[in-house]
Amino acid sequence: MPTPDLHNKRHSASVLTIDLGAVQANYRQLASVAANAECAAVVKADGYGLGAVRVGQALASIGCRTFFTAHLDEAIALRAALPDREIYSFNGLMPGEAETFSEFQISPVLNSLGEIEIWARYCADAETPPPAALHLDTGMSRLGLMPVEVQRLATEPERLGGFSISTIMSHLACSDMPGHPLNAQQRDAFSALTIALPRAKLSLAASSGIFLGPAWHFNMVRPGAGLYGLSPNRENPNPLQQVVNLQGKILSVRDVDTPQTVGYGASRRITEPTRVATVAAGYADGYPRSLGNEGSVRIGNVSVPVIGRVSMDLITLDVSNAPHAGPGDMVELIGPLHDADAVATQAGTIGYEILTRLGHRYHRHYIEGTA
Amino acid sequence: MPTPDLHNKRHSASVLTIDLGAVQANYRQLASVAANAECAAVVKADGYGLGAVRVGQALASIGCRTFFTAHLDEAIALRAALPDREIYSFNGLMPGEAETFSEFQISPVLNSLGEIEIWARYCADAETPPPAALHLDTGMSRLGLMPVEVQRLATEPERLGGFSISTIMSHLACSDMPGHPLNAQQRDAFSALTIALPRAKLSLAASSGIFLGPAWHFNMVRPGAGLYGLSPNRENPNPLQQVVNLQGKILSVRDVDTPQTVGYGASRRITEPTRVATVAAGYADGYPRSLGNEGSVRIGNVSVPVIGRVSMDLITLDVSNAPHAGPGDMVELIGPLHDADAVATQAGTIGYEILTRLGHRYHRHYIEGTA
Repeated sequence: MPTPDLHNKRHSASVLTIDLGAVQANYRQLASVAANAECAAVVKADGYGLGAVRVGQALASIGCRTFFTAHLDEAIALRAALPDREIYSFNGLMPGEAETFSEFQISPVLNSLGEIEIWARYCADAETPPPAALHLDTGMSRLGLMPVEVQRLATEPERLGGFSISTIMSHLACSDMPGHPLNAQQRDAFSALTIALPRAKLSLAASSGIFLGPAWHFNMVRPGAGLYGLSPNRENPNPLQQVVNLQGKILSVRDVDTPQTVGYGASRRITEPTRVATVAAGYADGYPRSLGNEGSVRIGNVSVPVIGRVSMDLITLDVSNAPHAGPGDMVELIGPLHDADAVATQAGTIGYEILTRLGHRYHRHYIEGTA
Repeated sequence: MPTPDLHNKRHSASVLTIDLGAVQANYRQLASVAANAECAAVVKADGYGLGAVRVGQALASIGCRTFFTAHLDEAIALRAALPDREIYSFNGLMPGEAETFSEFQISPVLNSLGEIEIWARYCADAETPPPAALHLDTGMSRLGLMPVEVQRLATEPERLGGFSISTIMSHLACSDMPGHPLNAQQRDAFSALTIALPRAKLSLAASSGIFLGPAWHFNMVRPGAGLYGLSPNRENPNPLQQVVNLQGKILSVRDVDTPQTVGYGASRRITEPTRVATVAAGYADGYPRSLGNEGSVRIGNVSVPVIGRVSMDLITLDVSNAPHAGPGDMVELIGPLHDADAVATQAGTIGYEILTRLGHRYHRHYIEGTA
């Protein structure tokens, strides 16, 4: 994971601003919606691309006690910044890793009977292993104990006898579609499966699940996307604050007067006088290639179309409607009037992919939160 | 730019292998196709995602003298590894940067009369500024001097009088389509525009352009994609060696016997007994979300489909046809039987985007080249 210092290039043309105060505000709002549950924070994939350590510190400073990563290495990197918080690693326990989990006091999320057996065997001789979580699969068919495995645990409780279980969790597949029948099915399956298991904190909902209502909150909620400003669903206005602002620098502006094509593949032909601006951001910076001839950016209040293909390092814009734009000016690639969800819709994907692709050639600027 | 050390996570499940010997072999092959021209190397975007410093060192050790990056910061990072090579930065010269170019002996690629003026003014007082390149726009409408600007230089030669010009370049828009008329048009326009300019090395072709034939080679070719094994065009078999091998680790395998959906959005319904494997790679690792229900991976000689959506950290596969696959086994996400170009076709993009998205949670393993 690149450190914040490595992100801060000295001569980067384009600037990615990450508002840690907005992350904190979103955490507080999500926690208040799920007021009867603990509110954890998911900072996997380098904090959805925004910096796990910076986000983790900002949230720990306002009281967040529990953090989730996907990989053990992510958890270890976070441990150095958050020495006294609970940190879980979703992706489970591979053979040979138990001692490392214990050394860094990272709680494994155990996803199968096999992983439970490895952890139990390790804990039999370990001095102070961290507590573990159990992950139950209620409808993702991805990771987690299948119902048949949970039944086995119920009839063979000695499998869970040798270690501490802090949390039992599952994960919703369709929580961004509030009306989807799977939401209630998964909730009910989770409730039913946990009855025969040891008492522990129960956790089902991530960001979108929080907005399904209190019946999905159980003892702990685990927002990720919402912390970073992504919309919980498409049915309601986004109640969360924007965290990301991406400003691309115009490197060049040219008046194209003669019929001419723009960019690779000559995919866009200019037939009337057009002002073309070239901006320092491309698909290697995470600006999706699928935005070629499809995307738009903002210059002040004007929406400006991407013309031609997105290049590796550059995009070209038709700025005929923004005649004052010149070299050195900034355009808004992601911002208040054109957020990550909106960019994602143009690109044919979801805001999560837009954030986790944000590249490492931008100058990264953090707006500090409250301490 | 993350350093190689930062890439090498200790517990990463999945492994990205980069064959520097294959990069060297591709360089030699490209150089031999353009035998009458110098062969430079394009290592922008962190060497197309594969590590600019490692690639740069491997190519310098077999005689490559000239390197191109997109950003000044990329060039500065490369300068530390290659103290005695020529390094150019494509994205031009922004106000205030001239002294830094000179300090690190990075040659700016001058893209406009404005940039030429900045550089000339700086060089008037500078002791040993590096030579510059001029970039002429012959059909990309992106960066580079427009024909009208080149004419101005021809009639006002004093604009170029105060500094050394090593190279005059342009860039082809359609070189991956050998039959496209723009290839000859751009070549002829480039030849015509350079007549009135000072003598310098002329350079037009990148990887695909090299295969258009000697008339496009001029004095220097600048391959990027081909070095990394991407195919020069779709009309002929790829003559280059594969550089990238991406192995994803299976974290879990489950037999799904009851009708059930897989992954987010319940986009895939399993109706007959199916073996589902979950692998540690997702869109945050650069495995495109567009591969959900579209992509495939290899297990030995068997092609295995991606089922359900691609998650941030995970993909799910139907491994019913690979019954021996189990947790801990590796699957080939990118490799000899399923290269980056093939993955790109499934994902609806080009191999360039697949490579430059390769994530930083993989264990990165380099196969050393020859010294």
